[in-house]
Amino acid sequence: MKINVLTSNISFDELYFTGKTCVVIDVLRASTVIVNALANGAKEIIPVGTVDFAMKVSGDAFRSQTLLGGERNTKKVEGFNLGNSPLEYTPEIVNGKSIIHYTTNGSKSIVKAKFAENLFIACFNNLTAVVEHMNKLGKDFEIICAGNNGSLNMEDSVCAGKMIFEIQKRKKDLVLSDSSNACLIMYKTFSKSILKMLKSTEHGKLLIENGFVDDIKECAKLDATDIIPYFSSGVIKKLELNNSA
Amino acid sequence: MKINVLTSNISFDELYFTGKTCVVIDVLRASTVIVNALANGAKEIIPVGTVDFAMKVSGDAFRSQTLLGGERNTKKVEGFNLGNSPLEYTPEIVNGKSIIHYTTNGSKSIVKAKFAENLFIACFNNLTAVVEHMNKLGKDFEIICAGNNGSLNMEDSVCAGKMIFEIQKRKKDLVLSDSSNACLIMYKTFSKSILKMLKSTEHGKLLIENGFVDDIKECAKLDATDIIPYFSSGVIKKLELNNSA
Repeated sequence: MKINVLTSNISFDELYFTGKTCVVIDVLRASTVIVNALANGAKEIIPVGTVDFAMKVSGDAFRSQTLLGGERNTKKVEGFNLGNSPLEYTPEIVNGKSIIHYTTNGSKSIVKAKFAENLFIACFNNLTAVVEHMNKLGKDFEIICAGNNGSLNMEDSVCAGKMIFEIQKRKKDLVLSDSSNACLIMYKTFSKSILKMLKSTEHGKLLIENGFVDDIKECAKLDATDIIPYFSSGVIKKLELNNSA
Repeated sequence: MKINVLTSNISFDELYFTGKTCVVIDVLRASTVIVNALANGAKEIIPVGTVDFAMKVSGDAFRSQTLLGGERNTKKVEGFNLGNSPLEYTPEIVNGKSIIHYTTNGSKSIVKAKFAENLFIACFNNLTAVVEHMNKLGKDFEIICAGNNGSLNMEDSVCAGKMIFEIQKRKKDLVLSDSSNACLIMYKTFSKSILKMLKSTEHGKLLIENGFVDDIKECAKLDATDIIPYFSSGVIKKLELNNSA
């Protein structure tokens, strides 16, 4: 079983992902938002690559069943119902709703990997659930770190490293690429405190400056849920046991 | 003084580099070849982004003064005079010559960063010389790791980390991006043996398989020379003290 990590979402063409099994990570905050929204009863998440497309797919006919969520430069987009704080996605607000989701790096990463055979979303909140599922699947896979506008970011790389560390405990014959080994090293350096690591990253500092310190605490929670978001035909839903993946 | 690292050469558009000070690293083996060729008397290196362009610029008129060097998938390109082994670039062969240089990742990285204000080439062989020069310049800079077809590779990231580690010893107020911190962590993990690290990487293993183990030993030599290759107007030459950079 081979694991490779892409430390940002820009380097690869959409066709690179065709037929692959992939896990998208955007710890701060898109994956954490998606996991929380589904845990709190959202029907589905529709990731979109542009704000224009988000506006287009949220027509009047579906307004009562649809919410627009996401951010640009950490802030809620004008005209959207929700920002990109996982704490906004409460059961009262999201239960039964379809959420159209646009973010600077995370939702673009998911859209880019749309030709993957299997596409899961992970963060610290659901890490062990995803690890157990990948271990059971037993397929080679690619971890796509959303990163920061084409650059590696620490939080996604550390989360990828934690996933690899946990799978290594369960499977002895793992083959790791250089980037997988790099993430493993980064995780081991920061394993004592995920929260402290998140606060020390470039994006963590920016979120703190913009008043989102509680979001960081939410994003640091390890294994708060066993929900695995699964992308298929343009939509992210909870993976059910009878699902093909 | 800020240092940022791009862990591969694909994520960024050429215009991103406009006006910046940059250091390109491709330890295995393009930067090491460039440093060795200049140390052994080559007049200049002309990096090219495609084999076709390499053929085009090496016209009959200049044949006696020009050599074509480089690789595709570790092997010498058909019709080229030299491969991409630093050991081939001896004084007898390269003295006084212009070398047109094509490689899978390294020369493409240099060509991509052509709009940089200052563009230097580094590897373990000339690391301290480049560190001293960057320290003296005192400008923010970007380290461009050639990487592996868009992915992070361990050897370039560790070399970038070693550069940052050495600059940190000389300057106390460094500002490091997440990717700079990641490289620093990787260097600290492998600082005991650069050679052992090089042999353990994906590309190192491939070179060993293809019979290039002596190249790896050459690439591992720390501070074998104080030559700093400097790219300007399409050509790489030795940086001279009276040079503007």
